[in-house]
Amino acid sequence: MSGRTARRRVLRVQVADRPGRASERSDLLAAEEPLGIRVDGQALTMTMRTPGDDLDLAAGFLVSEGIVRSSGDISSMKLCDGTTCGHLGHEGMGNIVDVELRPGLTVTPAARRNFMTTSACGVCGKASTAELFVATSWDINEDHVRIAAGWLTSAPQTLRDAQRVFASTGGLHAAGVFGPAGELLAVREDVGRHNAVDKVVGWALRQDSLPLRGCVLLVSGRASFELVQKAVLAGIPVLAAVSAPSSLAADLAAEAGLTLVGFLRGSSMNVYTRADRVLVDGQPGLTPAGRRSADRGGS
Amino acid sequence: MSGRTARRRVLRVQVADRPGRASERSDLLAAEEPLGIRVDGQALTMTMRTPGDDLDLAAGFLVSEGIVRSSGDISSMKLCDGTTCGHLGHEGMGNIVDVELRPGLTVTPAARRNFMTTSACGVCGKASTAELFVATSWDINEDHVRIAAGWLTSAPQTLRDAQRVFASTGGLHAAGVFGPAGELLAVREDVGRHNAVDKVVGWALRQDSLPLRGCVLLVSGRASFELVQKAVLAGIPVLAAVSAPSSLAADLAAEAGLTLVGFLRGSSMNVYTRADRVLVDGQPGLTPAGRRSADRGGS
Repeated sequence: MSGRTARRRVLRVQVADRPGRASERSDLLAAEEPLGIRVDGQALTMTMRTPGDDLDLAAGFLVSEGIVRSSGDISSMKLCDGTTCGHLGHEGMGNIVDVELRPGLTVTPAARRNFMTTSACGVCGKASTAELFVATSWDINEDHVRIAAGWLTSAPQTLRDAQRVFASTGGLHAAGVFGPAGELLAVREDVGRHNAVDKVVGWALRQDSLPLRGCVLLVSGRASFELVQKAVLAGIPVLAAVSAPSSLAADLAAEAGLTLVGFLRGSSMNVYTRADRVLVDGQPGLTPAGRRSADRGGS
Repeated sequence: MSGRTARRRVLRVQVADRPGRASERSDLLAAEEPLGIRVDGQALTMTMRTPGDDLDLAAGFLVSEGIVRSSGDISSMKLCDGTTCGHLGHEGMGNIVDVELRPGLTVTPAARRNFMTTSACGVCGKASTAELFVATSWDINEDHVRIAAGWLTSAPQTLRDAQRVFASTGGLHAAGVFGPAGELLAVREDVGRHNAVDKVVGWALRQDSLPLRGCVLLVSGRASFELVQKAVLAGIPVLAAVSAPSSLAADLAAEAGLTLVGFLRGSSMNVYTRADRVLVDGQPGLTPAGRRSADRGGS
């Protein structure tokens, strides 16, 4: 496994003073390397990721694509060390995860086509947001967990304290999953925010903890359509983001019954959907009435 | 064309006071919608993007994939309005760009396979970073532009001032291209950082301005492998990012002869590669001697 950070020489330039200063030093960067995921001997996808927790990443990706839903769906999973398979990353280490599904489970041509549609084809003809979704096995609508707003405001600091690599590189997204009692169950980091979430979900799958009922998924950045989909596929009822959600993230959250929290900063937050799960002084919030208002912003 | 922003109802929760407050209001979100790109009638890719500048996005994507390199390579390009092609986005508007390449130019099966490799397959067996690159037509190594460090420190504010949507939604990445005299030539915003860059590059292609010799590409976030590749394919010699680069971004920049600037904040910056293009008090910086040091970070 390659390292999560990599050291590079850098010229540090400071122009506040006159004359300006420039000095060479060593800098620690977040590592980014390609990871190929092969299922039953056939290449399924490639992602640029930060090395580490690669088996979690592969497992979580398969959950997010609707291919597996429990640890028993995976017979074996291993990271090629580069000697047996000849697949070397540019640091000379293995960058391929080989997955074998349980007997009887295959990536059907239809699922493969769905996957290809999601990543490299058109969604042409899909007229509703619901159709963008990968079909899920869990109905998170029925998850009646309640989360105190005060606890939510404390969660970003808990996540930051648990980030091991970000502090040294400033270059990583984080995703953390908190249990029903507010405890941090797992945190993962990656240059790609979708990878960080896949790593957390894959961790849960490998622990046989899916669906993650009553849990909160917290992400360090923005919330896109993709992250909402991953939360739903993992059976997580609450997704909270430190930054802004997109319109499609809010729409898909509404359709799936996910509680979507954005701009979770300081002592405040915006709750876009299913606010009844968020307790303010012990009282559940009222979900915004209209899923979306008729008026739209301009160009 | 769908709007770049969308209005949604939101429950604003504030827990600083006791009792906490929760009030419903209207919030403006960055719009996110799928865009399919079809070339000569065949689906090539799909991306989740912020509507707007869709033709720039499609053109820039084709540049980034090495499929086109001048405006003459594209015979026609149009955004389906949803009435003629039946491809409706979830807001009921067209979300497909149809591109026709000039006679004689096709997306060869090899190029299509390359593209699929990049987005949805393995890079298995590629042992060097150079092999990750899409072949480029421009040698940016030969671009001898010099950029004053003091000017660079002023560029992020110029970019922020030009961002029309971010201020209202907080949800968009920006990419701007500055000309050799420091003038802002174009700025584009998107929920996806790669899309913002493709939109700027596509704008340049459609203006017949490729390669962007002597120009600086500035991005509001982090610099990944992907953004370095896009800059190189557009013939841009300098990529500056407000946040951290990844290790692979720095390595590919070194191989391509791109000047990579990171952590461009306040009055300082880190120059990872080709620092000779950055002038400190009129003197070119010395490029860090070793492309990479032998030691690597742990875990």
